[in-house]
Amino acid sequence: MIVVTTVDDLRTALRDRAGRSVGFVPTMGALHRGHLELLHRARAENDVVVLSVFVNPAQFNDPADLAAYPRTDEADRAHAEQAGVDIYFAPTAEAVYPPGFSATVALSGPIVETFEGARRGAGHFHGVTTVVTKLFGMVRPDRAYFGQKDAQQLRVVRAMVADLNIDVRIVDVPTVREPDGLALSSRNVRLSADERATALGLSRALTAGEAAHRRGVTAAEIVLAAELVLSEFGVNPEYLAVVDDADFRQLHEVPPPGSVLIVAAEVGRTRLIDNVVLT
Amino acid sequence: MIVVTTVDDLRTALRDRAGRSVGFVPTMGALHRGHLELLHRARAENDVVVLSVFVNPAQFNDPADLAAYPRTDEADRAHAEQAGVDIYFAPTAEAVYPPGFSATVALSGPIVETFEGARRGAGHFHGVTTVVTKLFGMVRPDRAYFGQKDAQQLRVVRAMVADLNIDVRIVDVPTVREPDGLALSSRNVRLSADERATALGLSRALTAGEAAHRRGVTAAEIVLAAELVLSEFGVNPEYLAVVDDADFRQLHEVPPPGSVLIVAAEVGRTRLIDNVVLT
Repeated sequence: MIVVTTVDDLRTALRDRAGRSVGFVPTMGALHRGHLELLHRARAENDVVVLSVFVNPAQFNDPADLAAYPRTDEADRAHAEQAGVDIYFAPTAEAVYPPGFSATVALSGPIVETFEGARRGAGHFHGVTTVVTKLFGMVRPDRAYFGQKDAQQLRVVRAMVADLNIDVRIVDVPTVREPDGLALSSRNVRLSADERATALGLSRALTAGEAAHRRGVTAAEIVLAAELVLSEFGVNPEYLAVVDDADFRQLHEVPPPGSVLIVAAEVGRTRLIDNVVLT
Repeated sequence: MIVVTTVDDLRTALRDRAGRSVGFVPTMGALHRGHLELLHRARAENDVVVLSVFVNPAQFNDPADLAAYPRTDEADRAHAEQAGVDIYFAPTAEAVYPPGFSATVALSGPIVETFEGARRGAGHFHGVTTVVTKLFGMVRPDRAYFGQKDAQQLRVVRAMVADLNIDVRIVDVPTVREPDGLALSSRNVRLSADERATALGLSRALTAGEAAHRRGVTAAEIVLAAELVLSEFGVNPEYLAVVDDADFRQLHEVPPPGSVLIVAAEVGRTRLIDNVVLT
């Protein structure tokens, strides 16, 4: 595994591997089994695997949140090496945003304004689309891997790639869960034992929503079924909705296959999100 | 020469030529000798030459101006064929901006806000950067060719490519001029004989500014020398300034090599622009 920190060194490393297919996994580090799943998929489908580790200041609206974001560089490298990563790209903020930088890549509409967009501010997804466009420019991957866990981010990236005609295939990888259903997240470590039990309400609520969907009911009824389970667990959702697969617009009718049931909630002081695709 | 009108057909045509270097000339059609110079340069330096002809609605602030923009498709194809173009890409507006499209690629700062940016509105250069990012995504060229005539647009594209880490070399091609110095422009045909004589003031003023620069004077004195010539020709400039090569910020001190003396003026009802690089 080669470790590079500048765009020039990354390009040199990629030039040495020209003509081979490139799979790319962009992350903010603090790698857990969810990320490893992305890496395994990339490793299976490509000649060359590139992992980027970059805590992107542009997608944090709260400087304290940015400062508190976990950095586990040494462990990340060990995980990456074990997962068969060829190029580990960990640029500095200055390498990504040099002096004079002024570009923004922005989408508009519900896909960036609702749910996580509303919660984190309009700038959040602009920060995501700008940095992902840049990373795609640097790496020029054939395939890029995103977790279904961040459902809205995945769809924002898909829309951006379509809108800007970027020639990369976006591969989404199912959420990795604990045996009892809890979706993996770097934030789970912050949960106390009691909170851990409460947090289970999210995935259980999604399962109830899925079951309701199989009975052919409307989005409103799916949400109601999920809400019931959340309240049994004592979870008060920040949002709970069925949304369109492409543009993340909230649905109220009987949802077509591919629609997504999404939930966000604070459990203690930890904000958790989860979702399930209604097939 | 292959003529394609959809992104899919373009990509198929390019896939058939994989592994060969691609030179790209993006235009709005109405090809004149200035464009042909770009094509000749692209032909000399690449295995495959792609020409795009797309009158981009997003970079017009005035619908009447968009409607009046010359369309000379048949002549353009003949010119392109003769210049050795391999792929002639003439997409419809719907192919470039399909339903649901919502992306914007925007720079900020003087480079997009001053001079042509001020005149045409902030949206103009956002329209340029968005469509050029898209075209680069579609064509994935090794080199792209832009005329020095549109000095600010050239620098906006350079800044965008740097900011977004797009892996393409931007090649600038010197302005093509009539024997007496008038810069080629699709708009020159609108000039009456008298206006044609007056229009010569622009290039003559730039020559005077260049001569002043060689004496080592300040930007203010360069502008003064150019202004004198403009007034002899009865031209009242919309702007006349020395600007920084990279960010198009106006300079007042002794300009470093590479700075650009720019001018815009209405001659009769025709707006003309011209510039010279101070070497």
